[in-house]
Amino acid sequence: MINMSILRHVNILGSMRCFSSSGPQILRTGDILRQSRIFSDEDIIDYSKVSHDSNPLHFDAEVARNSGFEERLVHGMLVAALFPRIIASRFPGAIYVSQSLQFKWPVYVGDEVMGEVQAVNIRESKKKYMVKFSTKCFKSGELLVIDGEAIAILPSLALG
Amino acid sequence: MINMSILRHVNILGSMRCFSSSGPQILRTGDILRQSRIFSDEDIIDYSKVSHDSNPLHFDAEVARNSGFEERLVHGMLVAALFPRIIASRFPGAIYVSQSLQFKWPVYVGDEVMGEVQAVNIRESKKKYMVKFSTKCFKSGELLVIDGEAIAILPSLALG
Repeated sequence: MINMSILRHVNILGSMRCFSSSGPQILRTGDILRQSRIFSDEDIIDYSKVSHDSNPLHFDAEVARNSGFEERLVHGMLVAALFPRIIASRFPGAIYVSQSLQFKWPVYVGDEVMGEVQAVNIRESKKKYMVKFSTKCFKSGELLVIDGEAIAILPSLALG
Repeated sequence: MINMSILRHVNILGSMRCFSSSGPQILRTGDILRQSRIFSDEDIIDYSKVSHDSNPLHFDAEVARNSGFEERLVHGMLVAALFPRIIASRFPGAIYVSQSLQFKWPVYVGDEVMGEVQAVNIRESKKKYMVKFSTKCFKSGELLVIDGEAIAILPSLALG
């Protein structure tokens, strides 16, 4: 259920063009890394066990519906875990410095969620790289479910 | 490994006094909710499985030491999961709106971490409550490991 891609955004005459990069891949400002995932009932149960978060919104459809949702929710922090997962999978050893998260729309079991991190600033310091990423999750194509920013220290800009 | 408490902070002559509240408990601005947890090796493995985050910093002590840490790290997002867990355990049905996280210090297996959320602003809207919390995790007493803020919509201010 994981689908990975790197797209390079290039501004040409004010419009944005995307193309898959080839050859040795070095992270540059503007680059976008994506992975998609569909969360299952089992994921909700497993995450609740390890996080000790047993909010009934995740287990009781009636509570969820009475709160204005269609169905039981996937934990927002589990969906947001896509961001460090994307970053660490391409930059093993990445150290997370910060993350902001705005939960804008619910994610339900079976929704296909696309996590996207875009390098918006890269700063070198002592042979490491402090990178600010715009971090977004979408579902149903364009529906923004989580918005935010992350800062991570990368041991290298080479994409693994 | 979970320890829960509610403390009510009262400013008296500029100094801060804490005491356990008694009787019917209604969340008020300034209230602090706390829970502590010690993370195990098994927690790291279980969290990695459900989040798909297999950063070697969490599994390979040598990679962790070469990155300047004492030992393998507990995932920051797993430690941060203490915040929604604390809120949802006292306010079942709480809906998470936002969370900011600054990861200031590493958490290792066996560290006792104290999660703390303090209500800093409470706003009623349509018989629900939008509450801004200051969210902090400490270890070794006073060492701030995660700092941030969360906003949640609570169905009630009564502490469950």
